[in-house]
Amino acid sequence: MTATIQLKTQPAPIGFIEPAPEEGVVAASVYAGGKRVGGVAIEDAGRWSREPGHFVWIGLLEPSEQLLARVQKQFGLHDLAIEDAAQPHQSPKLEQYGDDAFIVARTAQMEGERISFGETHFFVGKGHIVSVRHGSSTSYAQVRQRAESCQVVLSRGEHYVLYAILDFIVDQYMPVLKSIQDEVENLEDEVFGDDPRAVDVKRLYMLRRDLLRLRNAALPLGDVCRRLEHAEVIAIDPALQPLFRDVNDHLRRVQEEIDSLRELLAFAFEASLMAGQAQQTDVARKLTAWAAILAVPTAIAGIYGMNFEHMPELKSENGYYVVIAAMITICVTLFFAFKRSKWL
Amino acid sequence: MTATIQLKTQPAPIGFIEPAPEEGVVAASVYAGGKRVGGVAIEDAGRWSREPGHFVWIGLLEPSEQLLARVQKQFGLHDLAIEDAAQPHQSPKLEQYGDDAFIVARTAQMEGERISFGETHFFVGKGHIVSVRHGSSTSYAQVRQRAESCQVVLSRGEHYVLYAILDFIVDQYMPVLKSIQDEVENLEDEVFGDDPRAVDVKRLYMLRRDLLRLRNAALPLGDVCRRLEHAEVIAIDPALQPLFRDVNDHLRRVQEEIDSLRELLAFAFEASLMAGQAQQTDVARKLTAWAAILAVPTAIAGIYGMNFEHMPELKSENGYYVVIAAMITICVTLFFAFKRSKWL
Amino acid sequence: MTATIQLKTQPAPIGFIEPAPEEGVVAASVYAGGKRVGGVAIEDAGRWSREPGHFVWIGLLEPSEQLLARVQKQFGLHDLAIEDAAQPHQSPKLEQYGDDAFIVARTAQMEGERISFGETHFFVGKGHIVSVRHGSSTSYAQVRQRAESCQVVLSRGEHYVLYAILDFIVDQYMPVLKSIQDEVENLEDEVFGDDPRAVDVKRLYMLRRDLLRLRNAALPLGDVCRRLEHAEVIAIDPALQPLFRDVNDHLRRVQEEIDSLRELLAFAFEASLMAGQAQQTDVARKLTAWAAILAVPTAIAGIYGMNFEHMPELKSENGYYVVIAAMITICVTLFFAFKRSKWL
Amino acid sequence: MTATIQLKTQPAPIGFIEPAPEEGVVAASVYAGGKRVGGVAIEDAGRWSREPGHFVWIGLLEPSEQLLARVQKQFGLHDLAIEDAAQPHQSPKLEQYGDDAFIVARTAQMEGERISFGETHFFVGKGHIVSVRHGSSTSYAQVRQRAESCQVVLSRGEHYVLYAILDFIVDQYMPVLKSIQDEVENLEDEVFGDDPRAVDVKRLYMLRRDLLRLRNAALPLGDVCRRLEHAEVIAIDPALQPLFRDVNDHLRRVQEEIDSLRELLAFAFEASLMAGQAQQTDVARKLTAWAAILAVPTAIAGIYGMNFEHMPELKSENGYYVVIAAMITICVTLFFAFKRSKWL
Amino acid sequence: MTATIQLKTQPAPIGFIEPAPEEGVVAASVYAGGKRVGGVAIEDAGRWSREPGHFVWIGLLEPSEQLLARVQKQFGLHDLAIEDAAQPHQSPKLEQYGDDAFIVARTAQMEGERISFGETHFFVGKGHIVSVRHGSSTSYAQVRQRAESCQVVLSRGEHYVLYAILDFIVDQYMPVLKSIQDEVENLEDEVFGDDPRAVDVKRLYMLRRDLLRLRNAALPLGDVCRRLEHAEVIAIDPALQPLFRDVNDHLRRVQEEIDSLRELLAFAFEASLMAGQAQQTDVARKLTAWAAILAVPTAIAGIYGMNFEHMPELKSENGYYVVIAAMITICVTLFFAFKRSKWL
Repeated sequence: MTATIQLKTQPAPIGFIEPAPEEGVVAASVYAGGKRVGGVAIEDAGRWSREPGHFVWIGLLEPSEQLLARVQKQFGLHDLAIEDAAQPHQSPKLEQYGDDAFIVARTAQMEGERISFGETHFFVGKGHIVSVRHGSSTSYAQVRQRAESCQVVLSRGEHYVLYAILDFIVDQYMPVLKSIQDEVENLEDEVFGDDPRAVDVKRLYMLRRDLLRLRNAALPLGDVCRRLEHAEVIAIDPALQPLFRDVNDHLRRVQEEIDSLRELLAFAFEASLMAGQAQQTDVARKLTAWAAILAVPTAIAGIYGMNFEHMPELKSENGYYVVIAAMITICVTLFFAFKRSKWL
Repeated sequence: MTATIQLKTQPAPIGFIEPAPEEGVVAASVYAGGKRVGGVAIEDAGRWSREPGHFVWIGLLEPSEQLLARVQKQFGLHDLAIEDAAQPHQSPKLEQYGDDAFIVARTAQMEGERISFGETHFFVGKGHIVSVRHGSSTSYAQVRQRAESCQVVLSRGEHYVLYAILDFIVDQYMPVLKSIQDEVENLEDEVFGDDPRAVDVKRLYMLRRDLLRLRNAALPLGDVCRRLEHAEVIAIDPALQPLFRDVNDHLRRVQEEIDSLRELLAFAFEASLMAGQAQQTDVARKLTAWAAILAVPTAIAGIYGMNFEHMPELKSENGYYVVIAAMITICVTLFFAFKRSKWL
Repeated sequence: MTATIQLKTQPAPIGFIEPAPEEGVVAASVYAGGKRVGGVAIEDAGRWSREPGHFVWIGLLEPSEQLLARVQKQFGLHDLAIEDAAQPHQSPKLEQYGDDAFIVARTAQMEGERISFGETHFFVGKGHIVSVRHGSSTSYAQVRQRAESCQVVLSRGEHYVLYAILDFIVDQYMPVLKSIQDEVENLEDEVFGDDPRAVDVKRLYMLRRDLLRLRNAALPLGDVCRRLEHAEVIAIDPALQPLFRDVNDHLRRVQEEIDSLRELLAFAFEASLMAGQAQQTDVARKLTAWAAILAVPTAIAGIYGMNFEHMPELKSENGYYVVIAAMITICVTLFFAFKRSKWL
Repeated sequence: MTATIQLKTQPAPIGFIEPAPEEGVVAASVYAGGKRVGGVAIEDAGRWSREPGHFVWIGLLEPSEQLLARVQKQFGLHDLAIEDAAQPHQSPKLEQYGDDAFIVARTAQMEGERISFGETHFFVGKGHIVSVRHGSSTSYAQVRQRAESCQVVLSRGEHYVLYAILDFIVDQYMPVLKSIQDEVENLEDEVFGDDPRAVDVKRLYMLRRDLLRLRNAALPLGDVCRRLEHAEVIAIDPALQPLFRDVNDHLRRVQEEIDSLRELLAFAFEASLMAGQAQQTDVARKLTAWAAILAVPTAIAGIYGMNFEHMPELKSENGYYVVIAAMITICVTLFFAFKRSKWL
Repeated sequence: MTATIQLKTQPAPIGFIEPAPEEGVVAASVYAGGKRVGGVAIEDAGRWSREPGHFVWIGLLEPSEQLLARVQKQFGLHDLAIEDAAQPHQSPKLEQYGDDAFIVARTAQMEGERISFGETHFFVGKGHIVSVRHGSSTSYAQVRQRAESCQVVLSRGEHYVLYAILDFIVDQYMPVLKSIQDEVENLEDEVFGDDPRAVDVKRLYMLRRDLLRLRNAALPLGDVCRRLEHAEVIAIDPALQPLFRDVNDHLRRVQEEIDSLRELLAFAFEASLMAGQAQQTDVARKLTAWAAILAVPTAIAGIYGMNFEHMPELKSENGYYVVIAAMITICVTLFFAFKRSKWL
C-alpha cells in the first residue's frame, strides 16, 4: 500500500531541481524508499516531509536566526527548542514537544594535540530530521554518504539517521579517549621514573580538566540514549530500539574508561606526592651527611689553628701529615658510613 | 464568554484611581486580557483577583509585618507561609497550601567585585502573584516592563509571570558564574606560573566558599522548577509547562558548571600542593649545593691556617696562589656540576 | 456534640486535687477545650486520656524504671518502646506500635562555651503525649506555658503539643549552629592571618567533631518529620500537617548549614595545609639566604688566616680595611639581592 | 485446639532418652508450649519438627560435611545453602529457599586486646532453627538458658529464637565498638599532646582497618533485619516483627557510631598531618635560629684570626675582651630576638 | 513424552561422524538427556538445537568474522550481538534479542606474577549456548569435562551450562584477589617497618590500578547475575534461579573484598604520607642537632685562633688542654641532651 502511495506522490519530483546551496545549509535532501530523491529547498521541506514514505534530512551549520525561523515554519517546531538551537552551550538532553523531539549532544574530537568540543542539536519528527552543528565538530557528510550508499539502511527512516549520527558522535569520543590514555601512560612513566622533577604538574591538571569536560559531554548523553532505547519520548520502531541500546552501551564503555582514568590520575597525584616527599627526605639526608663530613676538617683545622703557646703537637715533625691523614680518614669513613646507610 | 465577562467587569475600573505609592510596595497592578488595567491598592487586590480573567501582580520589598498581614487578608494566604515570607534565610522550596503555592528562590548577583545573595518569595494562586524581595537583589521592574509590553505574553496569566521572574533570577546567576570562571582562570595562571608563591590561598578558599553558596542557591531551585514543570503542586497550564522545563534546563547548566568549577578548584588545590612541594625540594637542593660549595674554601683555608711548625707548603713561594687557584677551581667545578644536575 | 460530651465529663474534675509533685515527673496535666483542666496523678492519667475531648500531657525527666512502668500501664505502651525510653543513646526515629507512635529526638544546646547533647523521647497516642528527657536539655516549661496561654492552639490536641516541642528542639539547634559559625569565622581569620602558627589544629578538629555530632542529631530527625508530615505513621490531622512540614523545612536549613560548614572546614584544612607549606618554604629560603650571607666573611677571613709565608696582601697597609670593606659590601649586596627576590 | 494436638503428641516423649553428645553438635532440643521437652538426636529432629506446636533448636559448631548432610536430610534443606554453611567467609545475607530461610551473620568480639571475627549461619523453617557457628564467636548457651528460663518467650517459637540470637550478636558488637572508641580517644590525646611524635601511625591504620571490618560485618546485617521486619522472606508473626525492627534499630546505632568513628579517624589523620607540618616548620625555624646565632662568633673570630700585619685592634690591651663581650652581646641579643618572635 | 520424542530423534545420530577440528572452534557438541550425543559441525548445529530435548554447546576462541557469521546463521543471532562478539573490549552486560540473550563477562587470572584480563561472550537461546573467548582466559575444558561427567547436571540444559561457566569465571577471580591481598599485606609491613624508604610507591600505584580493573570486571557482572536470577531477560527455570543467585552472592563477596582492599590502600597511602612526614622531621632534627654540636668546637677554636696580642689564656701552660677538654665536654653534653630529647 505504501507503494501505491509512493506511486501517487512520485509525479511531484518530476522536474526536480536541486536547490542552490545556501549559507548555513550543509545539506538538504528528501529520501524515499531507501533512496535519495533529490535536494530540497528549505521552503519545500515541510511539504516533502508530509508526503507518506518520504523523509527530509537537513544539515545546518551555525545557522542564522532567519534560517532557523524558516526551518521552524516548515516543520512547526517549538519556540523554546528553536531558541536553544540558536545558541550553543546547551547540556546534552532530550526534550519532547508534542510528537517532536529536540536532542542536544556534545561532540569531542582531536584537533592536532588539543581536544575541541562542539555541539549538535537535532529536531526529529514525523518525516524530518534536522541537525544543527555548533563549534568544532566533524561534518556528518561521511554519515550521509554511508547511509545513502545503503538502501536497506536508509529505508528505515529518520530515526535510523538519528541513530547513525549519534553513533558517529560517540565513535568520535574514542580517539580523544585514546589520546588521554596515552598521556596518562606517559605521566605514569614520569612519576615512577628516576627524576620525579620531570612530573609536569600542569599537564596532570590539564588532563584532569579535559577528562572532566569529556565526562560532561558523554554522561548526560547516556540518559538521552536510554530514553530513546525505551521509546519514552518518541515512538521509535521496536526494531530500531536495539540500535540506541548499542549506542548507550558504547557510551557506558566510554564512561567506564573516563572514570577509570579519573581514578588513575587521582592515584597518580597521590603517588607523585609520596614520591616528592621521599625525594625531599633524600635531599635533606644528603644535606645532613655532607654537612657532617665537611664539618670535620673545619673543626680539626680550627683546633690546630689556635694560638696557644703550649701545643706540643704543633712542634712534632709529622704532626701536620698525621692531622691531614686523620682528616681524610675520618671524612672517608663517614662518607662510606653514610653510603652504607643510604644517606648518600 | 470570557469576553462577555470582561465586558461586564470592565465598568468597575471606570474612575480607576492609581493608588498612592506605599512603603514596601514596589508595584501593584491588575491585568486583564494581556493588558495592564491599572494600579491597585492592597485593600482592593483581593476583589480584583477574584474578577474572572483578571490577575493581580504585587511586588513587595522587605515588607513590614503589617503590610504582609494586609496582603494575607486579601488572598487568604496561610499563616506559615506568611511567617516564612516575613523573615529571610529560607531555603529554596515550593510548598502547597490548598490551591496556593509558596515559593522561595535565592538570588545572586555581582555588586562590584563581590557576590551578594538575596531571596525572593512568591505567593501564587488563582488570580494573584505576590513577590517578596529580601536582601540584595535586582528589581523586577525590567521583567514587569517586558511583560507589559507584550500583550500575548501577559495574557497567559499569573503563572507566566512566575516563569518570567524565575527565568530572570536564573539569568542573574550567569554573570556571577562568569566572574568565578574568570577568577579560576587567573588562579590557574598563578598555580602554573613561574612564581608559585603568587598563589593566593585565601582567594582559592574564598572562591570555593562562593561556589558553595551559589550551589546552595541554585541546587534546590531545580527541584522547585521540576515540580512546577510536572504541575505537581499547582495546576500549571500544559502550554506553560515547557517554560518551567526550560528554566530547569538552564539551572542544570548552571549546576553542571558549578560542579565543574568545584572539581577544578579541588584539582588546582592539589596541583598547587604538588607545585609547592617541588619548590620546597628546589630550595632544599639549592641550600645543599651552596653549603657544599662554600664549605670547600673554608675547609682548605682552615687547613692552611693551622699552626704546625712543619708545613712545607707554607714556605713555597707560590703556595698561596696555588691554593687560591685550587679553591676557585673546585668551587667553579662544583657550581657547574650542581648546575648540570639541576640542583642550582 | 463534643460540647455535650464535655458538659457530661466536666462534673468529674469537681473536687479536682492537684497531685503531689513526684520525682521524675516534671509536669502532668489534663487539657480539654484548649484549657488546662488541672494536674493529674500518673495513676489517673489513663482514665483522663480516654475521656472524649481531653488529652493528658506528661513530662518526665530521666524517669526510674518503676515510673515508666506505671506510665506504660496507663496508656498501654509497648514493651520495646518502654525499654528504649529507659535508656538514652537512641538514634532519632519514629516507630509505630499499633495506633501509638514512639519518637526519639536529639537535643543540642550551648552550655557556656561547650555544646551539650541530650535526648527526648515521645509517646504519642490518642489522648496522651508523654515526653521523656535524658541528658542535658532545656526544660519544656517554656513550651508548656506558651501553649497554655493560647486556647486556640491547645485545643488542637496532643499532635499540636508534639509539633510545639519538636519545633522548640529544632529552634535550640540554632544558637549551637551560630556558635560554630562564629568559631569557623575565627578560624578563617587565623588561617589567613599573618601568623599561620596561630591556627589551632585541635580547635579545627573539635569543630569538625561537634558538627558531626550535630549532624547525627539533626539528620535522622528530618525523616521523622517527613513521615509525620505525610501522616505515614500516626493519623495527623491534615490541618496540622503543614506544621510538621515547617519543622522539616527548618531542619533542612539546619542541615544545609551544617553541610556547608563541614565543607568550609575541609576547605580550611586544605588552605591551612597550603599556607603551612608556603611558610615552610619561606623558612627554608630564609635559612638558605642567611647561610649564604654569613658564609662569605667566614670564607674570606679563613683565606687571610692562612699561614703562608708569601701572601703579599697581608703586608699592605690597608689590606685589612679593604678586606673588611669587601666583606661588608658583599654581605650587604647579597642581603639586598635576597630581599629583592623575596628570599628574605 | 493446639492444646488438644499437644495432648495427642505428648505420649511420644514417654521414655524420652537424652541422646549422647556428638562432636560438632553443641545442643539439640525439642521445645513445645514454651518448655524444653528434651534433647533430640539429629536423626529424630525432622520428625519432631513436624509435630504440631513443637520446634527443634539445634546448635552446631564448625560441623563436618557428614553432620551437615544428616541435618540437611532431616529438614530438607537446599544444597546451595548447605554448601554455603559448610564454609565460612560468607557475607551477611538472607536467602529464601521455598518456605525456608538461610541467614548469614558475622560476629565480632574482643579477645583480650584484639578483635576477632566469626560467622553464624541459620537455617530457619517451620518447626526448626539450626545455627552453625564458624570461627571465633561466643557460645549461644547464654541465649539458650535465658530463653529456656522464660516460658512465655519460648512459646513464641523458632522465629523468637532467631531474634534472640541476632539480638545477642548485635549486642556483642557493643564492647568491640567501645574498645575502638577508647582507642580513638587515646589517639586524640596523642595527636593534640605536646609530643606529636607519639602519634602511632600503625595504630591509626589498624583502627581504620578494624572499623572497616566491623562495618562489613554490621552493614549487610541491617538489610537482613529490615527484610525480616517486613516479613519479606519468611512469614514472621506480626507480633514478632517489632523485635526485628528493634535489632535493626540497634544495628543502625552501631553503624552510625562506626561512621562517626571513621570520619573522626579521617579528621584525626588530617589534624595529625597539620600538626606534623607545624612541627617540621618549628624544627626548621630552630635550625635557622641556631645557625644564625652560632655563625656570629665564628665570623668575628675568623676576622680577628686573619694574619694582616696592620690590624690595630690586635694591639689594643682590651681588644680581646671587647671582642668576646661583643660576641656574647650579639649572641644573647639574637637569642632573645628569636625567642620573642617564637623561632626558638 | 520427552522420552518418546528422543526415541524419534535418536535415529538421526546413527552414523554420527565427529566433525574435523576447525580453527577457532574449541569444542562443538550436542547433548541430550544429560549425555553428550557427539560432536557437531557448525553447519549442523542449528538443526540439532531445534531437536526437542537436545542442546548444542559451542566453544569459540577468538573466531574469525566468517566463523561468527556461520554460527549466526545457524541460530539466527542478532547482527548487533555478532558485531559486539567480534571485537573484545565490551563491558560486562546482558542484552536481550527476542528470546535470545547476549552476555559479556570479563575474566581475570594470574599469569605468573601478573594479572591478565580477558573476555567471554555468550549467546544463549533455546537449545544452544555459544561461548566466545577473547584475550587471556583459561579454557573451559574443565567445566565441560565436569559437566559431561555428571548426567543429572547436564540434563538441566543450556542454562545450567551458562551457570557453570559464570561460576567458573567468578571462581577464577579468587586467586587474583588472594594475590592482591598478599601484596597489600607486604605493603603494610613495608609502611610500618623500620625503613619507610622501603615503601614502593610504584607498587602501591600498580595495586590500586589492578584493583580498579578487577572491580571494572566484577561489578557489572553482578547486575547480569541479578537479572538472570530474577529471570528478567531469559526464562530461566525457577529451579536454576538459586544457582545464579549463588554466583551473584559469590560476586558480592569479591566486590566487598575489592572495596575493602581499595580502602585499605587509601589508608596505607595516608599512613605512608604520615610516616614519611615523621621521617622528614627526624632527619631535620638530626641535622639541627649535629649542626649545633659541631658548631661548638669551631666557634671556640675560632676564638683562640684570633691574633690579639693580649690574650692571657694563650700563654697558660694547660690552656690548650683545658680548651680541648671543654670542647669535648660541651659536645658530649650536647650529644646526650639531644639523645634524651630524642633529636638524635
